Amino acid sequence: MITQTKRSTSLIEQSSPLIKRVQRLHLREERERTGLFYIEGMRFVAQALHHHAHIEHLIICPELLTHPYAQRLVHEQKKRGIPVLEVSRPVMERLSQVVDSQGLGAVVRQRWLRLANVKPRGELCWVAVETIRSPGNLGTILRASDAVGGAGLILLGETTDPYDPGTVRATMGAMFPQRFVRSSKEEVMHWKRRHQYVLVGTSPTATQDYQQINYKAPVILLIGEERKGLSAELQAMCDLMVSIPMVGESDSLNVAMATSVMLYEVFNQRRKQTESVFRKPS
Amino acid sequence: MITQTKRSTSLIEQSSPLIKRVQRLHLREERERTGLFYIEGMRFVAQALHHHAHIEHLIICPELLTHPYAQRLVHEQKKRGIPVLEVSRPVMERLSQVVDSQGLGAVVRQRWLRLANVKPRGELCWVAVETIRSPGNLGTILRASDAVGGAGLILLGETTDPYDPGTVRATMGAMFPQRFVRSSKEEVMHWKRRHQYVLVGTSPTATQDYQQINYKAPVILLIGEERKGLSAELQAMCDLMVSIPMVGESDSLNVAMATSVMLYEVFNQRRKQTESVFRKPS
Repeated sequence: MITQTKRSTSLIEQSSPLIKRVQRLHLREERERTGLFYIEGMRFVAQALHHHAHIEHLIICPELLTHPYAQRLVHEQKKRGIPVLEVSRPVMERLSQVVDSQGLGAVVRQRWLRLANVKPRGELCWVAVETIRSPGNLGTILRASDAVGGAGLILLGETTDPYDPGTVRATMGAMFPQRFVRSSKEEVMHWKRRHQYVLVGTSPTATQDYQQINYKAPVILLIGEERKGLSAELQAMCDLMVSIPMVGESDSLNVAMATSVMLYEVFNQRRKQTESVFRKPS
Repeated sequence: MITQTKRSTSLIEQSSPLIKRVQRLHLREERERTGLFYIEGMRFVAQALHHHAHIEHLIICPELLTHPYAQRLVHEQKKRGIPVLEVSRPVMERLSQVVDSQGLGAVVRQRWLRLANVKPRGELCWVAVETIRSPGNLGTILRASDAVGGAGLILLGETTDPYDPGTVRATMGAMFPQRFVRSSKEEVMHWKRRHQYVLVGTSPTATQDYQQINYKAPVILLIGEERKGLSAELQAMCDLMVSIPMVGESDSLNVAMATSVMLYEVFNQRRKQTESVFRKPS
């Protein structure tokens, strides 16, 4: 438990080099230099711990850390030897990008896998992207991938950072079970052949309806950039190009929405194969 | 065509009362007082015109209005008698909430319908919400509704403003074909009975799988607030409560994602009834 005495003696100030380093983690450059990122709130810290993320420091603001669950969590991690930094309310609020951080944050080590070392574990699918501009969209995609039992994210190239605070926030903590891989197109082609994945791309102009495909084989969904969609080069990589039909005025769906609809199609087909209780609408 | 002479004589300054009024439209209070809202970019203005939205003024910045299609559009509207205000680049950039406004904006009259006057036109469904906190989520929902041929949005109460700039932006222009209704719960209950709509709510705790329902009847999807979902009161209004299955760590889906998945289920069932060419995956 955090006592009043301890609280007043160990508060770390805004000017502390450590706090400055944490603040700088909102910059991609700093995240990449250090391999760290910052998370906030009970849900995120609990999810990180549950999935054995490597936590460098917990950062707490005793004044705001009022939730008994959060207090217990901090107490347990202290006992396990995780460094806990206590900061004042103004410092916590400066660090925070959310309205209610619950007085709890953590500096966490990023986890990256090399595709060559990734063994499929019977997951539903992977999501591969080259560029997703909006951190919120990427976070929502990760949340959807987790919801359907997807394996994680394959990033083609360097343009997108899944550890962006906006992405992390939009995952609602669902990022920690997901695996992150950075890879080249060539590696993906090699890996998918080796493990017999089918690479499926979506485009509003594809002639094949996404529901006319049987997603029996393990799938990698290849997702294009928000405005331009999949480049010709990425489309050429795909085994299948499908479209999600639209009848309205829009010429495209939001990328996270389209990915969710695709993920649920794959998921629904797969669970119909395994759940004998499942009744088709008649 | 916009000539150099005209350009230099008619530029309206930042301090102009009219420009100040347009700027204030980012405030909900001002939008409600005036019944107007502001849109930016070629796509939005073209969509608004296509759907006969009432445009009060076009606002252009000749320096930025370089696209021939945008220039033609402005020229045509001028001929039709729509007032066109020319502003300097700094003024346009101050008005703008997007990176690239294409030198074109418009002040548009909001359109609201009274539910009692709304006649179903065989649309796939309606989306009803009480509170959606994130303007982006609401805009994405409108975009999805348009994509599947949904009728529009029924707002229960006063909490949510679909004319928020963040909402408008996220629709990518797909809001203009959608109909907007503000209504009480009692009116919705009355209207749905009269027109034989089925009111379907989603909740992660509902026992009925969303895919086990046959959405033959016209549907109103009732969507809950982002964090808390549907209140007990709103759940009690529903004819059916369904859940979207999840296997991951998340306890819920993003609200726009869940709505998209629901909308596509209704849409897919409906198009299977009508498209004889549709092959079920086997």
